[in-house]
Amino acid sequence: MGDIKAMDKLMDKFRSRKDELYKQKEEGKKVFGLFCSFVPIELVLAADSIPVGLCGGKDSTIPAAEEDLPRNICPLIKSSYGFKKTKACPYFEAADIVVGETTCDAKKKMFELLEKFVPMHVMQIPHFKDEKSFKLWLSEVEEFKELVEKSTGNKITDDKLKESIDKVNKMRKLFYKIYELRAKDPSPIKGADALKLFQFAYLLDVNDTIAILEELVEELKERVANNKGHKGKRILISGCPMVAGNSKVVDLIEECGGIVVGEESCTGTRQFENLVEGYTVEDLARRYFNITCALAFKNDNRIKRIKELVKELNVEGVVYYSLQYCHTFNVEGVRVEEELKKEGIPIIRIETDYSESDKEQLKTRLEAFIEMI
Amino acid sequence: MGDIKAMDKLMDKFRSRKDELYKQKEEGKKVFGLFCSFVPIELVLAADSIPVGLCGGKDSTIPAAEEDLPRNICPLIKSSYGFKKTKACPYFEAADIVVGETTCDAKKKMFELLEKFVPMHVMQIPHFKDEKSFKLWLSEVEEFKELVEKSTGNKITDDKLKESIDKVNKMRKLFYKIYELRAKDPSPIKGADALKLFQFAYLLDVNDTIAILEELVEELKERVANNKGHKGKRILISGCPMVAGNSKVVDLIEECGGIVVGEESCTGTRQFENLVEGYTVEDLARRYFNITCALAFKNDNRIKRIKELVKELNVEGVVYYSLQYCHTFNVEGVRVEEELKKEGIPIIRIETDYSESDKEQLKTRLEAFIEMI
Repeated sequence: MGDIKAMDKLMDKFRSRKDELYKQKEEGKKVFGLFCSFVPIELVLAADSIPVGLCGGKDSTIPAAEEDLPRNICPLIKSSYGFKKTKACPYFEAADIVVGETTCDAKKKMFELLEKFVPMHVMQIPHFKDEKSFKLWLSEVEEFKELVEKSTGNKITDDKLKESIDKVNKMRKLFYKIYELRAKDPSPIKGADALKLFQFAYLLDVNDTIAILEELVEELKERVANNKGHKGKRILISGCPMVAGNSKVVDLIEECGGIVVGEESCTGTRQFENLVEGYTVEDLARRYFNITCALAFKNDNRIKRIKELVKELNVEGVVYYSLQYCHTFNVEGVRVEEELKKEGIPIIRIETDYSESDKEQLKTRLEAFIEMI
Repeated sequence: MGDIKAMDKLMDKFRSRKDELYKQKEEGKKVFGLFCSFVPIELVLAADSIPVGLCGGKDSTIPAAEEDLPRNICPLIKSSYGFKKTKACPYFEAADIVVGETTCDAKKKMFELLEKFVPMHVMQIPHFKDEKSFKLWLSEVEEFKELVEKSTGNKITDDKLKESIDKVNKMRKLFYKIYELRAKDPSPIKGADALKLFQFAYLLDVNDTIAILEELVEELKERVANNKGHKGKRILISGCPMVAGNSKVVDLIEECGGIVVGEESCTGTRQFENLVEGYTVEDLARRYFNITCALAFKNDNRIKRIKELVKELNVEGVVYYSLQYCHTFNVEGVRVEEELKKEGIPIIRIETDYSESDKEQLKTRLEAFIEMI
């Protein structure tokens, strides 16, 4: 038992989720396996279906993947492919259809190979943020809606869509509240626990996630009122997602006297920020279009947002996190570092994979950084 | 002096090109620096301007690039960035504007940094080959036309466009003829020489290229008639471009008893295949949209084309060539290998950079492959 009860509930729910998912499947619900926070889960939910995040966070399935894929692509992609190939992930096995996207070169091309193992639908995400790119994206979202309707046999009515938009917005608002509370010093929750929230939110039933987040908000409020929490150098993580199975860098930071108070990533802010502002498919598409993934050419909104988060969360240093061979986040890190340094914000850039082999070296670098700030 | 006179002329033209280019600049012509065979050079030519290919093929500028960029991105990208950073390339220095594109993650993000050194315009290339992606691409081509007109002050009239489309088509048809002649055994031209043609065609005045190709076609016809040429295991290279400065793998193949008879690459077929079928901007955009770069999701036309080339050119083995960390070509290589093996076509996949360090190892592998086929 930890010191936060809602976290224990989260773990309980996670432990029972697999059986529950297979039960829902038996009852006729379709499972959509997703790889990216760009895919509008509202459409899946509105068709009485189940979205689950499938990104792989473990080293163990990478050797099997490397029998097919080049070694020098990102560990998340190899791990995910390996999970399917070795049938090692019950969530992946539960998926009736897998929805891919064109976020990055290696994922896009990996999906071509994954299709051997599972039915796929791939969405094209434009690189630019102009209106003609939005039009393309909107038609991708409309096509996805049709696909969901067709493959489930359930019509996504306006009412159903409104209901699911409200529900997912509610979850987002709760994450916002948790971020507000993490802005306090001491921070009422450890970064390692917050990361679990984001990771499991991709796997749990959204109603359960909401119930847990509601309890957590109340508990964290109480902790803040009682001045209970974690002190340490306040760190913002920024960059690639850290999906279930991967918490290496957060763990290292918190071992070295840091406390992670925010995650500018797809297991963090990109997962919940910006509400859907309306109830049409276009409103929905717009919210997702605005996600500040490094895939975008001239992703200035992301850099702006990192600076805001540094202020909002009283951050003392930024750990810029790239998965190995993730060109978009890796190269964008050059600009992020330049821009933060201009404002005197300490930043360290690290690039790592899922192995244990660089742990000591990373720890030495992170210790030095945390001591220095 | 080599045994093909047109090749000597090509080298002469190349040697005088730099001075000529600066003279044309002094006379008021604008120079457009390009990085990709997706950029429609017809529009540049129709505005009385000069297109030059700027991709870097040398190791020497990579250390300077690695001061800014991550090490593990492709050597072409690092070399190109390094050329601009160190002002080491007279063609790059001549460019009034550089036209980038979103072919791959690392190039897209590198262009954000390159803008510090030179004015940039970046074109969005869609990942999909459906009609809504074509619409996006068409509007990118239209925008590029406007940009060319605005930055040169020259209107691209219908007549001017027709003239430049005819001219570039003429060059393409000559390359087709050269490929027909290379299909003969013995092949009338070495792969190392053919590669120079493709490399220099990105740098020379298109009229000069056409004149040289016309002479070359006549010369090669004569050589074929006289049964003059090169015998050896007939190799098709398939994959990434080999831009000026980089001929490592072709040289190795031809040292090991192979003769390169075709290049399925942007320094090869992708540079000249498919004519523009009409005189509108839409016709022009269509030709470029059909380029079979590995950036495309489900790039089946490329695989089909490789198989055709194997037949057309009487190829005995395919050397699949990826630049290091080029995720698109690297991962697509898995499918290409699968598909060729199904048809009993020998293939070896190699991944390399611009350094000399893997030369011996590559040679050993290529020797074994060539002996085996």
